[in-house]
Amino acid sequence: MDNFYGPGRNHLFVPGPVNIPEPVIRAMNRNNEDYRSPAIPAMTKTLLEDVKKIFKTTTGTPFMIPTTGTGAWESALTNTLSPGDRIVSFLIGQFSLLWIDQQQRLKFNVDVVESEWGQGANLDVLAEKLAADRTHTIKAICIVHNETATGVTNNLATVRKLLDHYGHPALLLVDGVSSICALDFRMDEWGVDVALTGSQKALSLPTGIGIVCASPKALEATKTAKSVRVFFDWNDYLKFYKLGTFWPYTPSIQLLYGLRAALDLIFEEGLENVIERHSRLGKATRLAVEAWGLKNCTQKEEWFSDTVTAVLVPPYIDSSEIVKRAWKRYNMSLGLGLNKVAGKVFRIGHLGNLNELQLLGCLAGVEMILKDVGYPVKLGSGVAAASAYLQNNIPMIPSRI
Amino acid sequence: MDNFYGPGRNHLFVPGPVNIPEPVIRAMNRNNEDYRSPAIPAMTKTLLEDVKKIFKTTTGTPFMIPTTGTGAWESALTNTLSPGDRIVSFLIGQFSLLWIDQQQRLKFNVDVVESEWGQGANLDVLAEKLAADRTHTIKAICIVHNETATGVTNNLATVRKLLDHYGHPALLLVDGVSSICALDFRMDEWGVDVALTGSQKALSLPTGIGIVCASPKALEATKTAKSVRVFFDWNDYLKFYKLGTFWPYTPSIQLLYGLRAALDLIFEEGLENVIERHSRLGKATRLAVEAWGLKNCTQKEEWFSDTVTAVLVPPYIDSSEIVKRAWKRYNMSLGLGLNKVAGKVFRIGHLGNLNELQLLGCLAGVEMILKDVGYPVKLGSGVAAASAYLQNNIPMIPSRI
Amino acid sequence: MDNFYGPGRNHLFVPGPVNIPEPVIRAMNRNNEDYRSPAIPAMTKTLLEDVKKIFKTTTGTPFMIPTTGTGAWESALTNTLSPGDRIVSFLIGQFSLLWIDQQQRLKFNVDVVESEWGQGANLDVLAEKLAADRTHTIKAICIVHNETATGVTNNLATVRKLLDHYGHPALLLVDGVSSICALDFRMDEWGVDVALTGSQKALSLPTGIGIVCASPKALEATKTAKSVRVFFDWNDYLKFYKLGTFWPYTPSIQLLYGLRAALDLIFEEGLENVIERHSRLGKATRLAVEAWGLKNCTQKEEWFSDTVTAVLVPPYIDSSEIVKRAWKRYNMSLGLGLNKVAGKVFRIGHLGNLNELQLLGCLAGVEMILKDVGYPVKLGSGVAAASAYLQNNIPMIPSRI
Amino acid sequence: MDNFYGPGRNHLFVPGPVNIPEPVIRAMNRNNEDYRSPAIPAMTKTLLEDVKKIFKTTTGTPFMIPTTGTGAWESALTNTLSPGDRIVSFLIGQFSLLWIDQQQRLKFNVDVVESEWGQGANLDVLAEKLAADRTHTIKAICIVHNETATGVTNNLATVRKLLDHYGHPALLLVDGVSSICALDFRMDEWGVDVALTGSQKALSLPTGIGIVCASPKALEATKTAKSVRVFFDWNDYLKFYKLGTFWPYTPSIQLLYGLRAALDLIFEEGLENVIERHSRLGKATRLAVEAWGLKNCTQKEEWFSDTVTAVLVPPYIDSSEIVKRAWKRYNMSLGLGLNKVAGKVFRIGHLGNLNELQLLGCLAGVEMILKDVGYPVKLGSGVAAASAYLQNNIPMIPSRI
Repeated sequence: MDNFYGPGRNHLFVPGPVNIPEPVIRAMNRNNEDYRSPAIPAMTKTLLEDVKKIFKTTTGTPFMIPTTGTGAWESALTNTLSPGDRIVSFLIGQFSLLWIDQQQRLKFNVDVVESEWGQGANLDVLAEKLAADRTHTIKAICIVHNETATGVTNNLATVRKLLDHYGHPALLLVDGVSSICALDFRMDEWGVDVALTGSQKALSLPTGIGIVCASPKALEATKTAKSVRVFFDWNDYLKFYKLGTFWPYTPSIQLLYGLRAALDLIFEEGLENVIERHSRLGKATRLAVEAWGLKNCTQKEEWFSDTVTAVLVPPYIDSSEIVKRAWKRYNMSLGLGLNKVAGKVFRIGHLGNLNELQLLGCLAGVEMILKDVGYPVKLGSGVAAASAYLQNNIPMIPSRI
Repeated sequence: MDNFYGPGRNHLFVPGPVNIPEPVIRAMNRNNEDYRSPAIPAMTKTLLEDVKKIFKTTTGTPFMIPTTGTGAWESALTNTLSPGDRIVSFLIGQFSLLWIDQQQRLKFNVDVVESEWGQGANLDVLAEKLAADRTHTIKAICIVHNETATGVTNNLATVRKLLDHYGHPALLLVDGVSSICALDFRMDEWGVDVALTGSQKALSLPTGIGIVCASPKALEATKTAKSVRVFFDWNDYLKFYKLGTFWPYTPSIQLLYGLRAALDLIFEEGLENVIERHSRLGKATRLAVEAWGLKNCTQKEEWFSDTVTAVLVPPYIDSSEIVKRAWKRYNMSLGLGLNKVAGKVFRIGHLGNLNELQLLGCLAGVEMILKDVGYPVKLGSGVAAASAYLQNNIPMIPSRI
Repeated sequence: MDNFYGPGRNHLFVPGPVNIPEPVIRAMNRNNEDYRSPAIPAMTKTLLEDVKKIFKTTTGTPFMIPTTGTGAWESALTNTLSPGDRIVSFLIGQFSLLWIDQQQRLKFNVDVVESEWGQGANLDVLAEKLAADRTHTIKAICIVHNETATGVTNNLATVRKLLDHYGHPALLLVDGVSSICALDFRMDEWGVDVALTGSQKALSLPTGIGIVCASPKALEATKTAKSVRVFFDWNDYLKFYKLGTFWPYTPSIQLLYGLRAALDLIFEEGLENVIERHSRLGKATRLAVEAWGLKNCTQKEEWFSDTVTAVLVPPYIDSSEIVKRAWKRYNMSLGLGLNKVAGKVFRIGHLGNLNELQLLGCLAGVEMILKDVGYPVKLGSGVAAASAYLQNNIPMIPSRI
Repeated sequence: MDNFYGPGRNHLFVPGPVNIPEPVIRAMNRNNEDYRSPAIPAMTKTLLEDVKKIFKTTTGTPFMIPTTGTGAWESALTNTLSPGDRIVSFLIGQFSLLWIDQQQRLKFNVDVVESEWGQGANLDVLAEKLAADRTHTIKAICIVHNETATGVTNNLATVRKLLDHYGHPALLLVDGVSSICALDFRMDEWGVDVALTGSQKALSLPTGIGIVCASPKALEATKTAKSVRVFFDWNDYLKFYKLGTFWPYTPSIQLLYGLRAALDLIFEEGLENVIERHSRLGKATRLAVEAWGLKNCTQKEEWFSDTVTAVLVPPYIDSSEIVKRAWKRYNMSLGLGLNKVAGKVFRIGHLGNLNELQLLGCLAGVEMILKDVGYPVKLGSGVAAASAYLQNNIPMIPSRI
């Protein structure tokens, strides 16, 4: 009945898709419904209001598109830009690479700013480019807030400051797939023009909704953007928003109810508490890595990610072996090293609906696996370092005090 | 807890999304998983093999894209055609209209062949166009197998015959959204080049997978097709098929397990039995409509659809009122009349995982609603006509004999 | 994967276990929890308050015992009576028979008042017995409110009147298994001392909770009741009620959450509306039976049951064949005739979370089956009769107006 | 929506109810069914065959009673014994105490052999009693295989040896609630006459089935056993077993499907592997306790339980505080100390569908809590000790090699 059965729970520590909370699984456990009945528009309306909160925007317009993060990227680009438009894009890991590949295939003129994998976006180069671009040939800056492949978080506030400093009108398009609803993200304050995430990341849902939020400036840009688009066209949504029916094509009933439940849980915990919890989990993970004597793929503290940690292994170990063993022996799912860092890093995803004891179970598992593959780790050392920090910092659960 | 609660089950008779069988709901009731573990590729492999069966193809290549029918349309077009390509497309109702709108926005040169709503595709005109097109400027024929807005089924075998008769090399692209897995559809035999459906239709799943199947000729066409595409690009899938990991981006774990269960149920019943069941339900519905003294929107028997029946109401009745009352008083969901036939027809969807007594409950409900809105129906008349036919034709359930 | 698979939904029309509403299925879709954490007692407290409402009691004490109706019977008897105690008990069908069998095996002195199956309890005989019992040797009257085997509802108000008339102190013990939460039942007003139901009946849950409610007089009786009891002992519950932990042994976490959801739905619909809905469904069913030219097993209108209808078939038909065919051909579950009426009646359960169109689907099915087995029914006749009544009487769904 | 919501999964480490595996939750996620249709008896038949395997009996007869462990106890006693019968019963903790209380209230003549809590059953005293009982006044030996309150496992093989040594015909009745399907239990080999467990323990289901297995000798004893019983009467089951319908009253459809799935998972893992896994988890827990410098409530190694560990805390700590903190701060559920050991021990349940990383997460949590409450634990020490053992002993997951 279960071809790959292992006893107990699967320990899911890939950086997405992540663990779905039980109340969300329950909310999705349902038959289909007519999406044209009054029930679905009524719920959709609350969802559109509430997703804006996780982007920290009051002026943005959200779109909940039945697609993945890749589709959300495409939506962000094609609605705001025209083929041939110059965009500055930062290559710092596999996901920024894939986005750049998409940008190029969509026929934009991509000005790639590359960093070593493990470093953040090179904002000095951005500054130079902005300074040089007196005629505003740069139409958009595309940046991944959190590069999931290397565990690097870019500093968006600085990007905004640079744009403002140079009075540059370029659109700021942000991939927030592994950041929004987990890291500190402020759409309005940072003047982000398009931000996007996927349902299977910090929102802790199944894959299937690409949530894209557009600033008024981005909406304005749709009027001149000549990229061909239909499925991803925001205007089709806007038309149905006006009608109050909201959907240009059939949404997933189950995901809508799931999103409703997911947002309810997030607001019940408090978005700031959610972000603090991620900060705590990230810090604890890094303390464990340090205790193991291993290096973080992320080269500087300023870029440390609170949603995923890419751990560098010694050259004599193949990190893929760690991921394989996790699954084969410990019923744990870790993230592989991708592309340039394949074999060199394994990744611990610590985002979404996750708590401290889950993470400590994972860290205890990683320790055993490290020993399995011949790395001389002191068992318990990472857990000790992480829990020393956590024991001082975990708050009481508000609903249970 | 349930803002629009009504006692008992909702009677879902819109032509999609349709009722999900309990075993499929169960199969999807699960946490996320790492889609890069060995489990997901192993299951994906069986799915790709098995979905071919519902298209009746052995030579086609299927793509299970995380999108809706609209996205599946876009995928079919952009992978095989170039902007400016001439295509012949049949406008016979709201969904063919939307597809044509997409074709135009994707910059194809669309040669629209329009019929009155309620009629099938005008194949005489097609014959003329093919005959005239000595230089093969027509690159593709786009046709909806079953127009969901009017309940009209087009004759694809004849389309193929015409193409063959004129030795015309145009691609044959078929929207099978409300037909595949419910009506008689034969991809290989009819030489269909791209066929597509959506998970929320006859497969009886939630919305979220656009299943597209491409013939070898269609795959060949991708090499020269200049339409810009990334998210919908089949080649990204083919690359991962070769790697054996299958997914260029994150699929919905839940929908994959759901699709596995849905296919298992279909094969357990037998695809031919599934199609016969739809034929039975369609026939029974039409007999009821006749008994009520109402007209089918579909003008000729050759076009009658076995998945959806659009019922014309007398001019003094607003069909939207019927749909509203169904929901407000009887906990039933019927399909609205769309666009040109808004207010004039209501639609009974009878596709997917549905049996005869469910349909008879629906028909009994429709009778009461007709009376509610002032149509002088004889209560029980439609049910009587339908059940007279059904009582002679329902087979024993094979697993229970 | 499903050994007895039939397409579409199973039409469940046995008089229990009945259809579970989707929100209740969802609520039970969960992992276990520590029942000693603060969460479970907090919920249990609300349940104990709220189940009293469905008994219409403010003075009663409810017990939610992890057992079936049979266990609830045992609990009612052993907590209030001593071996050898004389009790008057009415035998009117299979379930009263089974209860009497239990009473005898529990060593009570059972004074059985038998009626023909299809008739209600003979209250004239009760009057005689009470009149004659000057010394109050009768310790309890045991009566089934609704005999599920024959579809007979007894008049409890009259029983109370008789007891009061003769100033008789006997306890009044009522099996409300197929009545409470569906029929008009008034524990306090009718001076019922113990009333009981099972979760799988009108509450529309899975089997597993026997809900027993005891009047202050019944609680007083426990002090002298010498029947041996441990598992079913109310005092163990009362001890834990005082502690505020509520459970003497482990309850089903899932059923508690399910009961919470079930009660929420009932109160959302309104208990009086629930009872009216049952009245409507009962009446509609009887109209159909009449239209078919068949007889109700229940001999007089005063006893007609609104939760189950036992239909007499002509002598040349074996009613078991009807039930078999329902399952084998129509994916419908009807109730068998039991014991004395085996082969002679089939039963339509119309209780719990059920609406009118579901019932009409069932009636349409019964018509076809009747024809299958050679009864000359006019197809559509029962549906016509039922829907003529329903169309005049179904209210708008309040949440959707 | 969730009154006591805490982020992430609840870490459920009470010794029952325990974690339910996802495939079992899925299997139970269903509507009710007619239990008299052919489907339920067909499944019941396989269940009765298969539950015998977890008792390791081929000659026993199982009963799956809709009740809890307390009801299963009552069933074991009342079916085999008569009021006044002398039974020897061992008091070693709260659950044996409760069983003895039941035995006394059921009017047996209970010869209580008491041990200090933390010790096993005093089998020397049993030997003396058996030796002295030439006239076989002892009708049954009642023993708890694993005392859940103290984490003590009794030696049943020795009990059998003593009975055989003295040629004593007393029945051997065993409470296997927290042992069967987790510890080494051999009904036939050890000549156990009645063994019982509850669904919410090692079988990892919700509460609701008391599974009782009777030897031929126990069945023979029912013929003379005069204890009053109806709901718990095995003969009612046996009557329906003969009829092939299996159920004297309504079972929980959901639990039957759940049990089917639970057994499938157990056999897929292999019963011996399941038992070894429990041995591993028990050993690991004890190593952690030792590393923390704390004492096991169980006084000798021969009694160590592999399903639950009761940990003694220093006198200056109230163990209830540990359990409260676990829930309030760490979203973990630990077992309270009960009765005599209230405040003195907390319990870690490590039974059912559980794996090593789950346990290590729990141990890491316990360490932090110990520190919270002022015990000078070295963080990571218990995890280190446990994982040193586990890393050497965890097998590869067979289905994933």
